[in-house]
Amino acid sequence: MRATRLVDIGEIRTEEVPVPTPARGEVLIRVEACGICGTDRHLLHGTFPSKPPLTLGHEFAGIVVAVGDGVTLAEGTRVTCDPNTWCGACENCLRGRVNLCLNNVATGLGRDGGFAEFCAFPAHKAHVLPADLDPLHGAFCEPLACTIHGIDMGAPRPGERVMILGGGVIGMLALQLCVQAGAEVMMVTRAAAKQALGRTLGAAETAATEAGARAIWPLGADLVVECAGVTETVEMAPRLARDGGRVVILGVLGRGETVRIEPFDLLFREVQLLSSFINPFTQARAAAMIAAGRIRVDPLISRTLPLAEAAASIAAPARAGEIRAIVLPCA
Amino acid sequence: MRATRLVDIGEIRTEEVPVPTPARGEVLIRVEACGICGTDRHLLHGTFPSKPPLTLGHEFAGIVVAVGDGVTLAEGTRVTCDPNTWCGACENCLRGRVNLCLNNVATGLGRDGGFAEFCAFPAHKAHVLPADLDPLHGAFCEPLACTIHGIDMGAPRPGERVMILGGGVIGMLALQLCVQAGAEVMMVTRAAAKQALGRTLGAAETAATEAGARAIWPLGADLVVECAGVTETVEMAPRLARDGGRVVILGVLGRGETVRIEPFDLLFREVQLLSSFINPFTQARAAAMIAAGRIRVDPLISRTLPLAEAAASIAAPARAGEIRAIVLPCA
Amino acid sequence: MRATRLVDIGEIRTEEVPVPTPARGEVLIRVEACGICGTDRHLLHGTFPSKPPLTLGHEFAGIVVAVGDGVTLAEGTRVTCDPNTWCGACENCLRGRVNLCLNNVATGLGRDGGFAEFCAFPAHKAHVLPADLDPLHGAFCEPLACTIHGIDMGAPRPGERVMILGGGVIGMLALQLCVQAGAEVMMVTRAAAKQALGRTLGAAETAATEAGARAIWPLGADLVVECAGVTETVEMAPRLARDGGRVVILGVLGRGETVRIEPFDLLFREVQLLSSFINPFTQARAAAMIAAGRIRVDPLISRTLPLAEAAASIAAPARAGEIRAIVLPCA
Amino acid sequence: MRATRLVDIGEIRTEEVPVPTPARGEVLIRVEACGICGTDRHLLHGTFPSKPPLTLGHEFAGIVVAVGDGVTLAEGTRVTCDPNTWCGACENCLRGRVNLCLNNVATGLGRDGGFAEFCAFPAHKAHVLPADLDPLHGAFCEPLACTIHGIDMGAPRPGERVMILGGGVIGMLALQLCVQAGAEVMMVTRAAAKQALGRTLGAAETAATEAGARAIWPLGADLVVECAGVTETVEMAPRLARDGGRVVILGVLGRGETVRIEPFDLLFREVQLLSSFINPFTQARAAAMIAAGRIRVDPLISRTLPLAEAAASIAAPARAGEIRAIVLPCA
Ligand SMILES: NC(=O)c1ccc[n+]([C@@H]2O[C@H](COP(=O)([O-])OP(=O)(O)OC[C@H]3O[C@@H](n4cnc5c(N)ncnc54)[C@H](OP(=O)(O)O)[C@@H]3O)[C@@H](O)[C@H]2O)c1
Ligand SMILES: NC(=O)c1ccc[n+]([C@@H]2O[C@H](COP(=O)([O-])OP(=O)(O)OC[C@H]3O[C@@H](n4cnc5c(N)ncnc54)[C@H](OP(=O)(O)O)[C@@H]3O)[C@@H](O)[C@H]2O)c1
Ligand SMILES: NC(=O)c1ccc[n+]([C@@H]2O[C@H](COP(=O)([O-])OP(=O)(O)OC[C@H]3O[C@@H](n4cnc5c(N)ncnc54)[C@H](OP(=O)(O)O)[C@@H]3O)[C@@H](O)[C@H]2O)c1
Ligand SMILES: NC(=O)c1ccc[n+]([C@@H]2O[C@H](COP(=O)([O-])OP(=O)(O)OC[C@H]3O[C@@H](n4cnc5c(N)ncnc54)[C@H](OP(=O)(O)O)[C@@H]3O)[C@@H](O)[C@H]2O)c1
Ligand SMILES: [Zn+2]
Ligand SMILES: [Zn+2]
Ligand SMILES: [Zn+2]
Ligand SMILES: [Zn+2]
Repeated sequence: MRATRLVDIGEIRTEEVPVPTPARGEVLIRVEACGICGTDRHLLHGTFPSKPPLTLGHEFAGIVVAVGDGVTLAEGTRVTCDPNTWCGACENCLRGRVNLCLNNVATGLGRDGGFAEFCAFPAHKAHVLPADLDPLHGAFCEPLACTIHGIDMGAPRPGERVMILGGGVIGMLALQLCVQAGAEVMMVTRAAAKQALGRTLGAAETAATEAGARAIWPLGADLVVECAGVTETVEMAPRLARDGGRVVILGVLGRGETVRIEPFDLLFREVQLLSSFINPFTQARAAAMIAAGRIRVDPLISRTLPLAEAAASIAAPARAGEIRAIVLPCA
Repeated sequence: MRATRLVDIGEIRTEEVPVPTPARGEVLIRVEACGICGTDRHLLHGTFPSKPPLTLGHEFAGIVVAVGDGVTLAEGTRVTCDPNTWCGACENCLRGRVNLCLNNVATGLGRDGGFAEFCAFPAHKAHVLPADLDPLHGAFCEPLACTIHGIDMGAPRPGERVMILGGGVIGMLALQLCVQAGAEVMMVTRAAAKQALGRTLGAAETAATEAGARAIWPLGADLVVECAGVTETVEMAPRLARDGGRVVILGVLGRGETVRIEPFDLLFREVQLLSSFINPFTQARAAAMIAAGRIRVDPLISRTLPLAEAAASIAAPARAGEIRAIVLPCA
Repeated sequence: MRATRLVDIGEIRTEEVPVPTPARGEVLIRVEACGICGTDRHLLHGTFPSKPPLTLGHEFAGIVVAVGDGVTLAEGTRVTCDPNTWCGACENCLRGRVNLCLNNVATGLGRDGGFAEFCAFPAHKAHVLPADLDPLHGAFCEPLACTIHGIDMGAPRPGERVMILGGGVIGMLALQLCVQAGAEVMMVTRAAAKQALGRTLGAAETAATEAGARAIWPLGADLVVECAGVTETVEMAPRLARDGGRVVILGVLGRGETVRIEPFDLLFREVQLLSSFINPFTQARAAAMIAAGRIRVDPLISRTLPLAEAAASIAAPARAGEIRAIVLPCA
Repeated sequence: MRATRLVDIGEIRTEEVPVPTPARGEVLIRVEACGICGTDRHLLHGTFPSKPPLTLGHEFAGIVVAVGDGVTLAEGTRVTCDPNTWCGACENCLRGRVNLCLNNVATGLGRDGGFAEFCAFPAHKAHVLPADLDPLHGAFCEPLACTIHGIDMGAPRPGERVMILGGGVIGMLALQLCVQAGAEVMMVTRAAAKQALGRTLGAAETAATEAGARAIWPLGADLVVECAGVTETVEMAPRLARDGGRVVILGVLGRGETVRIEPFDLLFREVQLLSSFINPFTQARAAAMIAAGRIRVDPLISRTLPLAEAAASIAAPARAGEIRAIVLPCA
């Protein structure tokens, strides 16, 4: 089969490899769709830790085509894959903080992932999707699960105001979750097209800058969700929170990068700064929401591409205005 | 009567003023003890907002000697005073965030306070203390109430590890609350005498620096409570938190001062950065704990002084090693 | 002016009384609309404590027509009234549990209320509504504020399942709040008309009985909100909760009435039984939601009536199928 | 080896069985101590579900004497055993509610347990204890882990009042956790000897009955922890809670048994009724507290007995006044 592999840091290639055999407790999945995420670019450039050589791709869904021993999932089932596997035995797992598992071997980061025709995958991390679902939709369960964790943490309530900073896939999912949670939401992103998409997905307001956001809501927001992952937005997030408000950081800055915050402002206005990491106990909810069509993902698909183009697309920077490019490995 | 007054920014003076008359809903208190807090120095130097001329002193207790209309508190009762008075009608009060009240007129900051022989004070903010309590103890209810709010937020659990950064009065109170909460506590402060006092008050470990703290607990603490109010400790606090840990900032940096934090470290270890401002709904608990002798405050009293020396003591920097100096206005 | 007064337990009468004068801190409100609530019937029959003689009516809104000393609200402002006034000084208020205030004198229960042409009312408990709002809508802020408190407690999350038991005004408001919170909601009520209204307001499912509800969702609901206030629904609520689910009781049974619960079922499935009492810190949010038109209240208005008919309507049982009858005292 | 086995419902016998071989991921433990719990009696009488024939015993600790494939625990290590094993894949596990796992096969209930000389046990559920710890202490980690879960839920804060209902092992552990959490605790149990032990372990007050408890604290307790598991105490628990208080039920009533509660009292005083089931994510904390000697368990050991007497002791009712009887299978 063909697989797009990180051969070494800085080197990515689509090559022929054997179809894997599912081990005990695993299923073999024919991959229908696998999203290209910013993390894939970090893995390529070595700014996110990985263990090459390995097949990339951690946002994927497909059809079970074979099963290992001890697996009850039927062949033919459509599933979406939670790439993170916690050990259940490390000191973090034992405290219930499974997203901080010290032994997590994430599929697509620490073991072969979804940019391939087939993927051997732990059955208990595969969530069933309806047979009649658009195959592309399953590729959004992983980013949605991460976003649900962040929004659970921020806990927007009906009638509250929420600002989303950043109009990428995480921002657009966060926006929809907050609108669904009954909040009045502002999308803060620079590109006009993303602002327009934000309105389509339920944003009551849009802005391009901190000053623009403040002009609309001078008192700030009950909850600010940082989904851009750049210094500027992380620094503006607490300032845009209302007195007594919460900030949830989902965006990732590089290891070692620092930002400046003003403790006086946090303290006298009692603004809380929370960070949300991946998807503890939220993947099943994400899969259920995608299965039920409760989240609009079609507008987030900027383009699809065959596996043959995956390596080049990962190697290039994200295209301007692109939300998500989805690889169809078997197309 | 004599009162120590902030005549103008930078100018403090003890002078003769009329004894106030308690208005409707107020009591007249003969002040037994009033602590000198770092905030008093900030008020003098104008680094904390106030409206001079006014009598300073917001950590005080005394005896009710007269009552205004509509007050049921008996004369002769010993009370401790919650200086903050929320309006109940501003947008923050209406959401239950009374410590962020937009109309708070704090006694000793916005109206005449406790560095005086007598003080007119709202009866419903006066908490009854036992007749046989050491009069000095009542001066600790206000800082204790602030500390309780921060420790409630941090929510230490039996068996958890807590680091307290800073061995002043707030740190020593936080230490005792965390020890009482069943945690294993480390006091991180530079002065050897404060470390020794920390041990006396229940600290299992002590350290002087971040490196020292980390050498003892390499994985960090479930909860880090910042009580020093300097850049260095605010910056080290999240680094000293364990994976999945919480940081509570109680210490105050100046308005406009910034610190550097590393978002990657917060996010990948899901460390939460919380800030705690004054004492919403905690003063009654503080008064009850002081009344019951559950908190050791005697070791926190570095010296007592008569009102005549209050102005000079506020004008001078805190003495080295001093925890709390208490003014006895009627001594 | 005319006022509908509880003259004594069991005796209600509309009679001529003097227009009240607003005291210091009060406003005089010309009442535009005042809802008849089940509690009014309890007050009449003495099954809920009150201090007659007094004018009933605690769900009302109107126009400020005069103001007492110290009030900044302008004449002509439309306001809705939070009938509960906490003292801020009792042991429950001091802990922030203001809905349990020991000294609450509720308007319409402990002092003259809204079934009258005019009502003198504490200015700081009056929430501003838009000048162009339908005057009837303001009568729903009080029940909405109570319901918000219950739903905050139950904390439904996007994608969760919620069952609402009871299709009265509280049930219909709870339904809308849970739909807005992103939940999939079932309305459980016996009357077909109320089920149909529930669908209109966003219910995904409806049922008439416990068995019917269970047939649709065999695993139960993440959250069950009891809004009927009868033994049967209180007893079925925990059984209908999913493993690990929450139950919030909003409905009121009579003092002394008991229900049977099975602790084994609660414990082995870890179902939590929560109760929600009136509206601590939620009235401003309720008023804002009504002002913004975020809650549909028109379908909840079964009929309007003049003050002359208020006494008879309170004395009669609620009409079959009626959600809310609204008295227009100045019509 | 010898093992005390539930041969069938109602039939328990100590008999010779082969020493088990540890499978992949398992360790073989030489059992040093295994507590007799009320649940063992329920298993014998069939009032708690089980799958005989099987070796009973779920509160045990011992020494690793052999390891299966893939295990890193060293032979000779002292460990305590968390009998519950969640699957990580059922709908409850996927939501993080691992104590409600639908596929939990608990050691001593669903697979061979600790009333035997040796036990094969999943390595990742074995928690390391110090080599120099009293071997009996490890038998208390399981009940302590369950109690920690309940007390986490009740969340006592320094200065709050807590009533513990029931002076068995769970009550005595709950008492210590609440004292450690800074609360003022009353032990409510009928036996004078247990009251006296409660005082030794930190109780500030003791009582034998509801009336006795109320006479001491007329306003009730912030938190009531039910640890007796009888109708009477479950019914009194909410009544003994203070306005706004919490009740945590740890005690187990039989399936189908019902109790009477008064919803009016719960609602108007906003008392929350919580139930706590076994030990999600708390066993490591329990083991650490036992290892550190933070919990006094010696006074809870009423007697030790050899394996030969285990069957008779389980078959007989608990001896009057007995807290815990510990079987020493290898003595
Ligand atoms: N915490 C987690 O578990 C988790 C999981 C997945 C992803 N992430 C992180 O979440 C972040 C977002 O992911 P993504 O896939 O949505 O990334 P993305 O497609 O790069 O989206 C980021 C968006 O931020 C906007 N942006 C950039 N600078 C901005 C500024 N100064 N002000 C306002 N908006 C700005 C950009 O739109 P404009 O050009 O319109 O401004 C861009 O669309 C990334 O950092 C990613 O690593 C975190
Ligand atoms: N949030 C609130 O509601 C609230 C209420 C009251 C007070 N506060 C604030 O809380 C802070 C503490 O108040 P306080 O009265 O206890 O002040 P303090 O007496 O000045 O105590 C601060 C302590 O921090 C220690 N410290 C200074 N630099 C340090 C470092 N680099 N590492 C470790 N420890 C260091 C000092 O002891 P060593 O010399 O031994 O290091 C000093 O004793 C202040 O900022 C105050 O404004 C906040
Ligand atoms: N906690 C608080 O702060 C608060 C505040 C306000 C009101 N309340 C209480 O909340 C409850 C609801 O108030 P409301 O004004 O909405 O009362 P309501 O108009 O009497 O509504 C109750 C509804 O319950 C339904 N019901 C009765 N028996 C039922 C059963 N066996 N199964 C299913 N549904 C049943 C009835 O509809 P069907 O005939 O269709 O079944 C009825 O419409 C009352 O008990 C009230 O006292 C509490
Ligand atoms: N939720 C969980 O995860 C979990 C885990 C383990 C155990 N449990 C359950 O927790 C309960 C306690 O376990 P245990 O091992 O401690 O049981 P236990 O030894 O039987 O202790 C129960 C105690 O309750 C006291 N009691 C009985 N009736 C009373 C009354 N009317 N008023 C006051 N006290 C009364 C008894 O002492 P006096 O004779 O002095 O009154 C007895 O010592 C059991 O129901 C057990 O099944 C639950
Ligand atoms: Zn792990
Ligand atoms: Zn205010
Ligand atoms: Zn009150
Ligand atoms: Zn499971």
